[in-house]
Amino acid sequence: MSQFTMNEIVSLAKMRGIVFPGSEIYDGLANSWDYGPIGVEMKNNVKRAWWQKFVQQSPYNVGLDAAILMNPKTWVASGHVGGFNDPLMDCKHCKSRFRADKLIEDYFKAHGEEVVVDGWSNEKMEAFIKEKEIPCPECGKSDFTEIRQFNLMFKTFQGVTEDSTSQLYLRPETAQGIFVNFKNVQRTTRKRVPFGIGQIGKSFRNEITPGNFIFRTREFEQMELEFFCEPGTDLEWFAYWKDQCKKWLADLGMTSENLRFRDHSPEELSHYSNATTDVEYKFPFGWGELWGIADRTDFDLTQHQNVSGKDMRYQDPVTHEKYIPYVIEPSLGADRMFLAFLCDALQHEELENGDTRTVMKIHPFLSAYKAAVLPLSKKLSDQAEAVYADLAQSFNVDYDQTGSIGKRYRRQDEIGTPFCITVDFDTQEDQSVTVRDRDTMEQVRMPIDQVKNYIEERIKF
Amino acid sequence: MSQFTMNEIVSLAKMRGIVFPGSEIYDGLANSWDYGPIGVEMKNNVKRAWWQKFVQQSPYNVGLDAAILMNPKTWVASGHVGGFNDPLMDCKHCKSRFRADKLIEDYFKAHGEEVVVDGWSNEKMEAFIKEKEIPCPECGKSDFTEIRQFNLMFKTFQGVTEDSTSQLYLRPETAQGIFVNFKNVQRTTRKRVPFGIGQIGKSFRNEITPGNFIFRTREFEQMELEFFCEPGTDLEWFAYWKDQCKKWLADLGMTSENLRFRDHSPEELSHYSNATTDVEYKFPFGWGELWGIADRTDFDLTQHQNVSGKDMRYQDPVTHEKYIPYVIEPSLGADRMFLAFLCDALQHEELENGDTRTVMKIHPFLSAYKAAVLPLSKKLSDQAEAVYADLAQSFNVDYDQTGSIGKRYRRQDEIGTPFCITVDFDTQEDQSVTVRDRDTMEQVRMPIDQVKNYIEERIKF
Repeated sequence: MSQFTMNEIVSLAKMRGIVFPGSEIYDGLANSWDYGPIGVEMKNNVKRAWWQKFVQQSPYNVGLDAAILMNPKTWVASGHVGGFNDPLMDCKHCKSRFRADKLIEDYFKAHGEEVVVDGWSNEKMEAFIKEKEIPCPECGKSDFTEIRQFNLMFKTFQGVTEDSTSQLYLRPETAQGIFVNFKNVQRTTRKRVPFGIGQIGKSFRNEITPGNFIFRTREFEQMELEFFCEPGTDLEWFAYWKDQCKKWLADLGMTSENLRFRDHSPEELSHYSNATTDVEYKFPFGWGELWGIADRTDFDLTQHQNVSGKDMRYQDPVTHEKYIPYVIEPSLGADRMFLAFLCDALQHEELENGDTRTVMKIHPFLSAYKAAVLPLSKKLSDQAEAVYADLAQSFNVDYDQTGSIGKRYRRQDEIGTPFCITVDFDTQEDQSVTVRDRDTMEQVRMPIDQVKNYIEERIKF
Repeated sequence: MSQFTMNEIVSLAKMRGIVFPGSEIYDGLANSWDYGPIGVEMKNNVKRAWWQKFVQQSPYNVGLDAAILMNPKTWVASGHVGGFNDPLMDCKHCKSRFRADKLIEDYFKAHGEEVVVDGWSNEKMEAFIKEKEIPCPECGKSDFTEIRQFNLMFKTFQGVTEDSTSQLYLRPETAQGIFVNFKNVQRTTRKRVPFGIGQIGKSFRNEITPGNFIFRTREFEQMELEFFCEPGTDLEWFAYWKDQCKKWLADLGMTSENLRFRDHSPEELSHYSNATTDVEYKFPFGWGELWGIADRTDFDLTQHQNVSGKDMRYQDPVTHEKYIPYVIEPSLGADRMFLAFLCDALQHEELENGDTRTVMKIHPFLSAYKAAVLPLSKKLSDQAEAVYADLAQSFNVDYDQTGSIGKRYRRQDEIGTPFCITVDFDTQEDQSVTVRDRDTMEQVRMPIDQVKNYIEERIKF
């Protein structure tokens, strides 16, 4: 687990320009966050790492970028209009409002037990709360209203009138943008099943209890792959994509002890799912879901076929057989994955001389800057700027000339810059610079014209 | 101007997986579009080209990614709550609804005249329409209601109740996310004025008359730079950034005859602006704004200081003087810029043998694929796949083994792939392939191990 508490991470993130509270000058907007200069580069790199491996370098997959605003029938077909609800109850005594499932889970967690409420009916939860006399976390009494369903989709209105005909939803997931385009993509790419479609984009859920920094936010970014395969081959492909997710995390240096792959039990599975695995990460606040990998069978395409009346079947070009493909969906949140990498990388380190430093030992592919150019004196600006300008053609580079060299090293350590390049008074003469390694703190002197290759070799993914 | 009509472009975009109509299986959602496998890569490349030059490689600038949902006071300060309205009027006869300014402009355009209505008051527009007896485009009568103001921001509600305290807006521009973070970014990066903050992200405007494919959509993506400088130096920096925009367009191969830089006249300028230039592109439907470059003085930061009560001034580290910086804002729409590159690149070409081909002569940095690997026969799959897998480590590569080689060339021409690599029956023996150039159609035979460098040299930006 991270050596840092969530409070320490939130505070370092703010101080170093990684993540700021949203709308801060207006005292914020509950649970909204803005990625600062360091955070935006890191999050872009997380997205790029996913896109490269799951879309561009996969021989099976292609990408898509569907609109956030979709025809509302989409959400009828997907089940979100009917079933995407939180079960809310109010404390009759103090009027506080809670999610019934969380009320049960949190109560048992506080008593060191784990209860999984997924899939329980409202009646079952109501009865359980009554039977166990679970108290209101605010006032301590146990007297709640019945459960009311609250739909989690954000509503908005398009056009000049606010009637229901123009009512739209902000998409609660990117997946449906893929399903409705299944035939368009298959036809235009001439892909044969098995193939997949990946997408990165914002989704919105009107969560009642968001929290834990950027772990659960109402506005968030998803990276979803929908992989279409022949029925009967689905469990094989489920295993294949599970392995790919594992490999991706390992290749990017995620600590394996902080990860667990939790297979859903038969009772926990959605009615349409043949298999589901949650990849969980050990955050400072406990285990949290990072990646959901699900065999969704033909549920989604069948739903869209039924509601739209359009033929969603695929015709096998050899057997000419028509069928609705099965779908394997590895789905994750970019903000959450970013947070996991951040937690995993931040370390307090004791140095040989007794000092301590904070260092973000993140994979160089994910770090905001690949290198920082540090002139030892402002008199060396010309040479340092030339080094900066040359390297900046190949990767993202910081330039920092303020403060002692030791302080500049510490700052770069905290934002995860893998290499610091110091331009000193010998540089003009020997056309060389000192390159310091973030993790080992070792320094190597090398000719300027070798620096680019030296770094490029070490930031690959 | 493009040799293609808009209809031809929309149809090719759909056929080749560049842009699909949104929610198509549900008969669409007015004016929404989804980027297909080719389009998403191209649009990502447009965004990457901007981010590299205007954020990463600029010694002045850093990036940001602020949330779409902001504290609503933001939009009071920015003027969007009070003033971001369309002037609507209804035809009393046939009940059709129009934007008064468009009614005037379109009427005169149809008569070969140009009238610029920007900045007219409602009274002036109403009087003008009456005086000129401008007819309803639907029924021909000239009898309209008075103008009503219609706010263009999409509204939504956060939390469990739909009262006004929880009412939010989808941001109508990304710029304000930058302004509210000005102090956060300055403090954490320790940047000195002049410096800039760039951002890419979705914005939403409830336009009454969207249209022209992806030129004007209700959901769109912006790329905005807010550059902060000392008052008095603003016109210099305005000229600097105008040049940078020009250079960016030229470096990416935009035809200069299709571009014009239109400086706003003093009457046309916003009351707070010292200078504004619209970069316009000659689309098949006429000139359309591509990039707005504005000297916004201290208007935005002052507004936020007044409404938030927070000190938005910058303290000069040398003179210790405090002041609100002036802002230069080059702002553009990613979808629009993508459309301009698409229009600019698509060509009908007559070949020497009398045949014609359609080719997208787009800058290789922007093309979806940098190369396509084409095995001449399925028997050559193993070698071809090895070539594909190796190149895919460095850039995005297509693999296509279906259809005659000529048809495959044509398809790659239409999606803009700059190089086609043909693996043939000699490849095993001589470890060489044929590389065909999209624009010249010339073919060169070269050893497999030289292909990567050959292409990398030619796709730089």
